Amino acid sequence: MTRTEPRPAGPTLAVVARAAAVSIPTASKVVNGRKDVAPDTRRRVTEALDALGYVRRPRLTPRHPPPLIDLVVHCLDSTWSGAVLRGVEEAAHEAGLEVMISGGLTRTRGGRPERDWLDRLALRGTSGVLFNLAELSPTHYAWLEQHRIPYAMIDPVLDPPPGVPAVGAANERGARSAVEHLLSLGHTRIAVVGGYRRKQCSSARVAGYRAAMAAAGLRPRAEYVRYADFDTATARARTHELFALPQPPTAVFACSDPMALGIYQALAELGLRIPQDVSVVGFDDLPEAEWVTPALTTVRQPLREMAATALRQLLRMRDGGAPPGARTELPTRLVERHSTAPPRPLAHDQRLGQRSLCRTTHGT
Amino acid sequence: MTRTEPRPAGPTLAVVARAAAVSIPTASKVVNGRKDVAPDTRRRVTEALDALGYVRRPRLTPRHPPPLIDLVVHCLDSTWSGAVLRGVEEAAHEAGLEVMISGGLTRTRGGRPERDWLDRLALRGTSGVLFNLAELSPTHYAWLEQHRIPYAMIDPVLDPPPGVPAVGAANERGARSAVEHLLSLGHTRIAVVGGYRRKQCSSARVAGYRAAMAAAGLRPRAEYVRYADFDTATARARTHELFALPQPPTAVFACSDPMALGIYQALAELGLRIPQDVSVVGFDDLPEAEWVTPALTTVRQPLREMAATALRQLLRMRDGGAPPGARTELPTRLVERHSTAPPRPLAHDQRLGQRSLCRTTHGT
Repeated sequence: MTRTEPRPAGPTLAVVARAAAVSIPTASKVVNGRKDVAPDTRRRVTEALDALGYVRRPRLTPRHPPPLIDLVVHCLDSTWSGAVLRGVEEAAHEAGLEVMISGGLTRTRGGRPERDWLDRLALRGTSGVLFNLAELSPTHYAWLEQHRIPYAMIDPVLDPPPGVPAVGAANERGARSAVEHLLSLGHTRIAVVGGYRRKQCSSARVAGYRAAMAAAGLRPRAEYVRYADFDTATARARTHELFALPQPPTAVFACSDPMALGIYQALAELGLRIPQDVSVVGFDDLPEAEWVTPALTTVRQPLREMAATALRQLLRMRDGGAPPGARTELPTRLVERHSTAPPRPLAHDQRLGQRSLCRTTHGT
Repeated sequence: MTRTEPRPAGPTLAVVARAAAVSIPTASKVVNGRKDVAPDTRRRVTEALDALGYVRRPRLTPRHPPPLIDLVVHCLDSTWSGAVLRGVEEAAHEAGLEVMISGGLTRTRGGRPERDWLDRLALRGTSGVLFNLAELSPTHYAWLEQHRIPYAMIDPVLDPPPGVPAVGAANERGARSAVEHLLSLGHTRIAVVGGYRRKQCSSARVAGYRAAMAAAGLRPRAEYVRYADFDTATARARTHELFALPQPPTAVFACSDPMALGIYQALAELGLRIPQDVSVVGFDDLPEAEWVTPALTTVRQPLREMAATALRQLLRMRDGGAPPGARTELPTRLVERHSTAPPRPLAHDQRLGQRSLCRTTHGT
């Protein structure tokens, strides 16, 4: 994955071919990602390449890699991407690099980069690629490795294979701090609205919720744990379900700020006030946390710092450094604003009559 | 400004020099943007260049201009920039171009691009530069012209010099539609919170406000017209001033959505409900308009379409087309949500007692 010279010494392709019991042209085809190789042959060659530590000679060995890096963003117009973009651009500027952006991931199935984008990338060269919130396939990882293109993941959706540098937030600990804050106010009926059930950033946050509840001697009720796919409208629907329960929660922890917005919308529709009737805590600290009324108490992810850290890891790899051994986790921080308060002494259903006096439907 | 071949036939510099009654070296100086030419001479040469349709021979005539365009953004992490970025990236993708971003404008005085950024741009080449919300100096315009770099402005802060392609929204008409909506609900005490007093996008919106009021036979009171520099916190302060007036308004038109957020904050602090006590209309239709409660009625600027239009103009110029003669204005559209209602029949100050029953301080 290094582009610097001198290149590390390593076995020649002839040695690899002999070890795999194939011809040199066949070994070369595998190294060059050609398709006209039988699967079994490809496997044998790949194993030999790995076992012998073969380092492919770059087709071009530019002394000066192009002074640009590529940033692949799932969705260009989210506030999440805005923070990442700014973090990458500032760190790149400091390093004397320009930033090429691609929103190409939005145009393909399953958030995977387009094949023609990869081909153009190989043609023009790059100092490396940063993937934001991406979900890459084994083929894509193999392609990047084959082309000796350094890359790093910012908050990958799934845990990437070992050895792939990834930077994220301390999701589990951050979630715990959110729930501990609600517990310290006296809440015990705390619900959680998670993102995707099976994705790292989401499952770690729900795990943090469970850990904080368990540490307080509370067993979270199954009906208090809901998933809303990081989507505002879905979170709104889940909130309506939570508050239709015989015993609704007095506080809700949203595993993202956009989901907290959906919770705000549902509570306004129900005539429930934040924080007087229900406390809400988010996760992200995106700009919208400050825009809503009341301003949202939330767990701050250092998105710009995460982006800058991923860029620096990528540059170290470009300059011949080893990739970091494990996922880099940056600490989170609870930002207290105005969306939490102690629970009301009265039970929710007993307050209905009183609340109706102050019901404000906000025209919804 | 063309980079394609064959170039259109046109007069030689000798013909221009003869028409302007100057020497060929003098005509050349004017064409090359040199400063050591008397103003009157420069005018004569410029007129001759225009009259004869002179096309300057590019210093470099690359057969394949680099398949990338540059986007210069004032602030990478605003929702405004997100919409523009997405519009540019999608249109660029369609045109087979990649997008290089620079947030360099944020790092310099007065929103002007850094000199070293310009130098790097000249070295590596570009198909053209899009400036988002930029304020360029005459020196920058001259530099871009000298280097034959096509460029276009997305919503320029100041009116650019004639002949510079610029794309914006129909600000005056859009503002008129916002105020007409409030008038149709029965409001007459309508205040406006403008952006910058002297900048195009803001002054045109305040002009639209005045035009709508005048058409309804109303003379806006001077104390109802305030400026808040497109800043949320300043708009919040201006709103407190408006509602400390002996006769406060019943509706406020904010010349941007971020300023409408500041108005929401101030009204919440004052215990005034939207839209029951005060109606609010914004301008932009940024994502935050849907995130706030109640959702904001606002004038939609087609930001993605503006960005894509600017890109297409730039590509036509790259391919030898003439720059559009005037600013391109895309139509706006009023998006009605839940922040407006007819004014209360009672005067504001008579309702204080009644309001206090339902006061919700939201913990501010």
